[in-house]
Amino acid sequence: MPDMTFVLFGATGDLAKRKLFPALYNLFLDGKMPDAISIIGLGRTHYQHDDFRFVVEKAIREYSRRPIQVSNLQDFLNYFQYFIFDATSKESYQSLHELIQSRESELDIPENRLFYLSVAPQLADVIASNLNASGISQTKGWRRLIVEKPFGSDLKSAQQLNECLSIAFHEDEIYRIDHYLGKPMVQNLESLVFANPALGLLLDHTQIANVQITASETVGVESRAAYYDQAGAIRDMVQNHLLQLVMMTALNLPEQLTAKEIENKKIEVITSLRPIKKEMVYKDIVRGQYTAGEVLGTPAVGYTDEPGVDISSTNDTYVAARLYIDNPSWSGIPFYIRTGKRTNEKSTRIVMEFKSKVNDTTKLLTEGITPNLLIVEISPNENISLRVNMKDPSLNRFIPTSINFSTTAEDQPEAYELLLFDAMIDNATFFAHWKEVELSWKWIQPIIEAFQENLLPLHTYPAGSTGPDAANQLLQDNQFNWW
Amino acid sequence: MPDMTFVLFGATGDLAKRKLFPALYNLFLDGKMPDAISIIGLGRTHYQHDDFRFVVEKAIREYSRRPIQVSNLQDFLNYFQYFIFDATSKESYQSLHELIQSRESELDIPENRLFYLSVAPQLADVIASNLNASGISQTKGWRRLIVEKPFGSDLKSAQQLNECLSIAFHEDEIYRIDHYLGKPMVQNLESLVFANPALGLLLDHTQIANVQITASETVGVESRAAYYDQAGAIRDMVQNHLLQLVMMTALNLPEQLTAKEIENKKIEVITSLRPIKKEMVYKDIVRGQYTAGEVLGTPAVGYTDEPGVDISSTNDTYVAARLYIDNPSWSGIPFYIRTGKRTNEKSTRIVMEFKSKVNDTTKLLTEGITPNLLIVEISPNENISLRVNMKDPSLNRFIPTSINFSTTAEDQPEAYELLLFDAMIDNATFFAHWKEVELSWKWIQPIIEAFQENLLPLHTYPAGSTGPDAANQLLQDNQFNWW
Repeated sequence: MPDMTFVLFGATGDLAKRKLFPALYNLFLDGKMPDAISIIGLGRTHYQHDDFRFVVEKAIREYSRRPIQVSNLQDFLNYFQYFIFDATSKESYQSLHELIQSRESELDIPENRLFYLSVAPQLADVIASNLNASGISQTKGWRRLIVEKPFGSDLKSAQQLNECLSIAFHEDEIYRIDHYLGKPMVQNLESLVFANPALGLLLDHTQIANVQITASETVGVESRAAYYDQAGAIRDMVQNHLLQLVMMTALNLPEQLTAKEIENKKIEVITSLRPIKKEMVYKDIVRGQYTAGEVLGTPAVGYTDEPGVDISSTNDTYVAARLYIDNPSWSGIPFYIRTGKRTNEKSTRIVMEFKSKVNDTTKLLTEGITPNLLIVEISPNENISLRVNMKDPSLNRFIPTSINFSTTAEDQPEAYELLLFDAMIDNATFFAHWKEVELSWKWIQPIIEAFQENLLPLHTYPAGSTGPDAANQLLQDNQFNWW
Repeated sequence: MPDMTFVLFGATGDLAKRKLFPALYNLFLDGKMPDAISIIGLGRTHYQHDDFRFVVEKAIREYSRRPIQVSNLQDFLNYFQYFIFDATSKESYQSLHELIQSRESELDIPENRLFYLSVAPQLADVIASNLNASGISQTKGWRRLIVEKPFGSDLKSAQQLNECLSIAFHEDEIYRIDHYLGKPMVQNLESLVFANPALGLLLDHTQIANVQITASETVGVESRAAYYDQAGAIRDMVQNHLLQLVMMTALNLPEQLTAKEIENKKIEVITSLRPIKKEMVYKDIVRGQYTAGEVLGTPAVGYTDEPGVDISSTNDTYVAARLYIDNPSWSGIPFYIRTGKRTNEKSTRIVMEFKSKVNDTTKLLTEGITPNLLIVEISPNENISLRVNMKDPSLNRFIPTSINFSTTAEDQPEAYELLLFDAMIDNATFFAHWKEVELSWKWIQPIIEAFQENLLPLHTYPAGSTGPDAANQLLQDNQFNWW
C-alpha cells in the first residue's frame, strides 16, 4: 500500500469517534496501514495535537472491537495531527496545505492524498472548490475523496453536489460511502454464486416467487430529528441503502468480475427498475408514521411527540414498496422492500421465496408444506439459511426447518474498516458510484413528490409493531406475505 | 387400524428385546396400536405367559427411548402371550393355531394375522410351509409376513428362500425389513424434492460431480463372527443397506408417489445399475480387512485374531465400490460407496459433490474455494447440510462453511417403530421388495464370486483408520476424494 496523507474533515464529530478512529485502529492492528501515513484531523474545536490524540485514544478505547494493545498504541497515535479549520476561509486552506506538505516532507510521503468529508452536506461545495483553488487537491500523486451520506436530498440537489465535487475530483476519484455495502454479508453477495455453484442453482430466477428486503429498526429518531424530519425514511434508507441492496441482490453474478464490471451490472439493474409515475405511487408504495406504543417492553411516544419533530409532521418513518426489475432475469418477480423506525425488531435481511410446486393449498395446509426460503441475514447476525420442509416420519407431516450457516470468523471486521481499506487501495467495488446514485434519485423522485403533495395516505402504526397493515396488503395482492 | 394378531417367531431373541418390544411399547404410548391386539411370542424356552411378560417388561425398561408409564403398563403387557414352539413339529403349529383362534375369539379379533420372522434364515422354509399346511396362514382376514435380514447369502439362496415364502404368502404380503429404510432421514429422502422445490434445484444431476455413500462402523465383529466370517461386508452391508441407499438417493422424485410407484422407481434404478463382470471387479471394487490398530484410543486386535474368526480368513470387513447408474438422470455421474468395520468413525451419510465452476485449480487453491457439498447425515445424527464457500472480507479468501438443518423433533422414533407401524397399516413403501432384493443379488453375485476366487487383492487397513489406501485411489482415478 502506498504511503499517504489522510485528511479528515469533521474529525471531532460522532462518526469519527464511533467508526473512523476504531476502523483505522483495527486496520493498524491487522498490519493493513501504509508504512508511513499522515492523518490530519480537521475541526473547529481549538485542540492541540495532543488534545486530539487524546480524543482518538479515548474513542478507540470505547469503540474498538478489539482491545487496545498498550505496546504500540503510541505508534498509532503518532499518525495523528490536528488542524483548526474554517471551511470558508481561504487562509485556512493555505495553512492546511502547508501542514500537509511539511508532514509529507518530514515523513517522506509522496503526494497521495485521501480526503474524507464527514461534514454537513452544504459544506461540500465550498470545501471542494477551495481544495481545488488552494492547490491541495492538485497533487503529483493520487487524490481521492470519500463522501458520507446524505448525497443530496433529491435528484436536483444530488446533481448539484456532484457537480461541485467534480470541480476538484474525477468520478473515479470519488468514493461515496454507503456503509451497508461495507457489511461483510453484503460483500458476500457479489461472490456467492461465483464461489458456490450450488447456490447458483438455487438462485435460478425461474424458481423464485418473490424477493423481500427488510431493514427495520427499533429506535426512533433519537437526536437526529432536525435532519430526519426533513429526510424521512424514503431519503434516509430507501434511496441509498435499500436500493443498493436491491442492486446487490439482483446482480447474481456467475463469474468473478472487476469493480468496474460490477458497477456496470449494478447500473444495468437500476436502469431496469420499472419507473413509478407520481400519480401511481399510491399503488406500489406504502408510507407510515409511528404512533405511541411499546418497543421491546418499553413505552415509546409517537413520532410527532418526539423532541425536535413538528407536532403536525407528515414525515414518513416507514416505507414499504413493490418493485419490478424489467430485465430478462427478474421479469415478473416482485421485489418487496420495507424499512421502518420503532418496529418490533432490529433486522436487515434479504429473503428469497421459492415457488411452490404444490398448487393445492388444502394439501399444503394438511401436510404442512410451506415455501422454501433462502434468507440472507445481514444484521444483527450474519448468516444464510435455507428453510426447507422436513418430514416428521411419525406424524407424516412436514415441518419447516432451517439450515443456517454463519460466517466462521467470530469477530468480523466492521463496515468502515473494509471500506476505508478499499479506498486506500483504490478498490471502488463497494462504493456507490455517481450513476447509481443519480439513477436511484431519479427513481425515487416521483415518490418524494407524491409524498410532498400528499397523493397517498400516511398510514400509522403503533411503535413496536411490524408496520402499517397496508404494507401487508401490498403482498397479499399477489398472495404473498412478509417473512 | 384393524384389530390383529401379531405372531413373533424368535420372541426370546436379542432383536425382540432390543428393538421390537421397545418399538411396540412406543407405538402404544403414541396411541398407534389397534384397539385389540393379540401378541403371541414364540420360542423354545419354557416360559409361562407371565415369565414372558416379565421379559417384555424388562426389555422395555432397558431399551425404550421413553420412560415407562406405570399407570398403563399392565394394559400393554396384557397384549402378550407366550407359546413354546418347535418349528419342525406339526403338532406345534396345530397348538399354535388353537391358541391364536382362542385369543381371537376371546378378544373378538378378526383373522388378521401378522407374522414376524426373527429366526435363523434356514428355518424360514419349514415355518412358511407349515404355516400354510396347518392353515394358520389361511385366514379370512389379511395375512402379512415380516422377514428379517439376511435374505439369502447369494442370488440362488435368496431365490430359494423367496420361493419357500411364496408357498404361504404373496409378494404383496411379504415385508422384508431393511432397517436402514426405517431411519427417519432415509424416509425423508423420498419426499425431499417433492416438498422442497429449492432442493429440487440443487439436485439437478447436470450439476452433480459425484455421490458418495458411507456406512462406517468403529466396532469389530463382536459376537457375530460365526455369521460374519461367512457373510463379509459385501453381504452384510453392501447387498442390502448400501444398495437400498443408492436406490433411495437416485430416486429424486419431483412428485409425491404411492408406495407402488416408488417401488417401480427403485427397480428402475437398480435395473440401470451398470453390471460388473467378475473379471473386471478388481477395477471398481476394493475389498479390505482390518489389522491390529487403535480405535478411538483403545487398542483393537486384527480381524483374524477376533474370537470365532479363522486365522487364515480372507473375509472382507471393508468394501468400497464405484457404481454407475446408466439412466438419463445419472449417466456419467459416479456413485462411490464404502462400508467398513473398525474404521475411525461411526457414520452413515450421503454426500453429493457439486461440480465446480472454477476450472483453474491454482485459483481454487489461492482463493480457498472448495466444492459445494450436500451432506445427508443419517446416523448417528440426523441432519442435512450444505457446504458453501463464504468470503472472509478481511482476508479476501473463501472459507468453507456448512449450513445445517437438523430435524426439530428431539426424540425421533426408532426405525423399528416406523417399520412395524407401516406393516400394521399395510404401507410397504419402506420395505425391500423381492424384485429389488433379487436385482441387488444379481448385481452383487459376480463380486461375491470374484471375492471367492481371489480375483482381486485383499487390502489391509489398521483398525481405527479410514480404510485401505486403495479406496482413496478409486476416487483419485477421477480426480475426486472421499468427503
